Amino acid sequence: MDKVYLSVDLGGTRIRAARCRAAGTIEARTEQFTRAEDGANAVVERIAESLRVVWPAKGKVASIGVGVPGPVDPFTGVIFLAPNIPGFVNLPLRDWLQAIFKVPVVLGNDANLAGLAEWRYGAARGHGHVVYLTVSTGIGGGVIMGGHLLVGSRGLAGELGHVKIDYHGGACQCGSVGCIESIASGTGMVRQVRERLAAGEKSRVMEIVSGDLDAINVEAIARAAEQGDALANAVLDNAFYALGMAVVSFLHTYNPSLVVIGGGVSNLGERMFTPVRDTVMRHVMDPAYVCPIVPAQLSSDVGLLGGLALALDPPPQSSH
Amino acid sequence: MDKVYLSVDLGGTRIRAARCRAAGTIEARTEQFTRAEDGANAVVERIAESLRVVWPAKGKVASIGVGVPGPVDPFTGVIFLAPNIPGFVNLPLRDWLQAIFKVPVVLGNDANLAGLAEWRYGAARGHGHVVYLTVSTGIGGGVIMGGHLLVGSRGLAGELGHVKIDYHGGACQCGSVGCIESIASGTGMVRQVRERLAAGEKSRVMEIVSGDLDAINVEAIARAAEQGDALANAVLDNAFYALGMAVVSFLHTYNPSLVVIGGGVSNLGERMFTPVRDTVMRHVMDPAYVCPIVPAQLSSDVGLLGGLALALDPPPQSSH
Repeated sequence: MDKVYLSVDLGGTRIRAARCRAAGTIEARTEQFTRAEDGANAVVERIAESLRVVWPAKGKVASIGVGVPGPVDPFTGVIFLAPNIPGFVNLPLRDWLQAIFKVPVVLGNDANLAGLAEWRYGAARGHGHVVYLTVSTGIGGGVIMGGHLLVGSRGLAGELGHVKIDYHGGACQCGSVGCIESIASGTGMVRQVRERLAAGEKSRVMEIVSGDLDAINVEAIARAAEQGDALANAVLDNAFYALGMAVVSFLHTYNPSLVVIGGGVSNLGERMFTPVRDTVMRHVMDPAYVCPIVPAQLSSDVGLLGGLALALDPPPQSSH
Repeated sequence: MDKVYLSVDLGGTRIRAARCRAAGTIEARTEQFTRAEDGANAVVERIAESLRVVWPAKGKVASIGVGVPGPVDPFTGVIFLAPNIPGFVNLPLRDWLQAIFKVPVVLGNDANLAGLAEWRYGAARGHGHVVYLTVSTGIGGGVIMGGHLLVGSRGLAGELGHVKIDYHGGACQCGSVGCIESIASGTGMVRQVRERLAAGEKSRVMEIVSGDLDAINVEAIARAAEQGDALANAVLDNAFYALGMAVVSFLHTYNPSLVVIGGGVSNLGERMFTPVRDTVMRHVMDPAYVCPIVPAQLSSDVGLLGGLALALDPPPQSSH
């Protein structure tokens, strides 16, 4: 009989869990608030509680895959850090959950797992070498090479938002400068618009948000751009040129057969994809590197499907 | 009995070939000029001739590994392009050699193979996840992930010299702008010094090369820098800061346990390694990414050992 897998999508706001089959079907699901302010032990207990809700009445669980909002070591099952969950620092979540449930547990970074989900169930099915980017408030990534998630020596590979695209550039929230995230993420674009407004430039964005600087978001910038606003278009153009240049770097370093872009900013559709693709065509070093750049297909279940995909195909238990 | 492998190091100037054992011992070798101007057929015939010279009198050859100065598809054995060998365009060298010698032949890009050689026989022995950079007239790379050469969907991965570090920056010889090669390669540094001299800046470099602009090279720049020359130090500082930032990107994208840097520029020793390491420590997003950054160990045989390493462990024959 078809094996049963459990999947957990741990977020800063919500904990989702599901009972799944390898084909990508979700048979049961549950959701609750993370309430990270209650501390690490309470959050771990909520994860366990969610797993009990979806645990099958009969039959066995083959394994449990958990997506975590921060860097994790898949070899040791330790969460280095989850920026949105205070207390999740060097937390051995895998061993804690295995001690409770007595089945294999495997952890992965949420952006990595979103890439894995798109590869197994979404836009990248059938491709062996895939670069996945999520462009949202931040920029994250996941890389599939030869049909396996690229994790590197400590599970930290694929941190695609923090490649340097502007080595003498402005500050990034990671503490360094010039990362693609600081230019092409939603947060980065909003910051650039605010800075230029503060410097005295004019933009329709201000009317769209009724003069409330704090209300500026990517949708407002995109609306202003659509109406022909010069400042909004300049910020979007620069961001998507930068994103295209980062994609060129990824083509040269990973040589994927497909690039998938998801996340909130990708909902701008062709306003984002067209300049990214144009930049790639202009700047790639050889046409042999060119590959399709397509939107992600999975929506709100991408996290649960990522945990499932990881449970099905955990990284080899070696490191170094 | 221990198997015999043949290795070819095809360069724009010289063709080297050797008879080897898996341990990295070279039992016989030969070398001749490539004389690329004679055309592709003549060069292929010279490769075959070199292989006949080192062919064992008795016993079998297990396989032949060939390093090529340009992008190759390891799955089809076709050389896309060898910039220094006119006529080597979409050349099915693997099949040609297999037809002649009736043993398995495998092709790889020379910088990729240098990384593979450092991993199997040099500075990166015992590491499963390695980023290798050669910083010379250009910048090339080779990446080992999980004990295998990362080749990507068409064998083009690891082209580390053409990551974008300055997205609004100056021209690179690849036809694009802002590549790390354009800033931190020997050619890039020499160009920057010449441009600043042409703009009227003064430098001791001019005395060192006796006023001959064409004689400016990395050694002359380094000598001037050592003597306290401001222009020379500024160019080196900027180049090695840029190189360090590129290494930060590689740590974030590949998460290696070791970075190896070879090539002519790396002979500057601590004048290069110290600023690169300092930049990494300052700009990496989390200390968990930090790993040693060490000099390459193999010298002129790196190409032959790379071909041997590839022959021993060819990439899986699948793609996409």
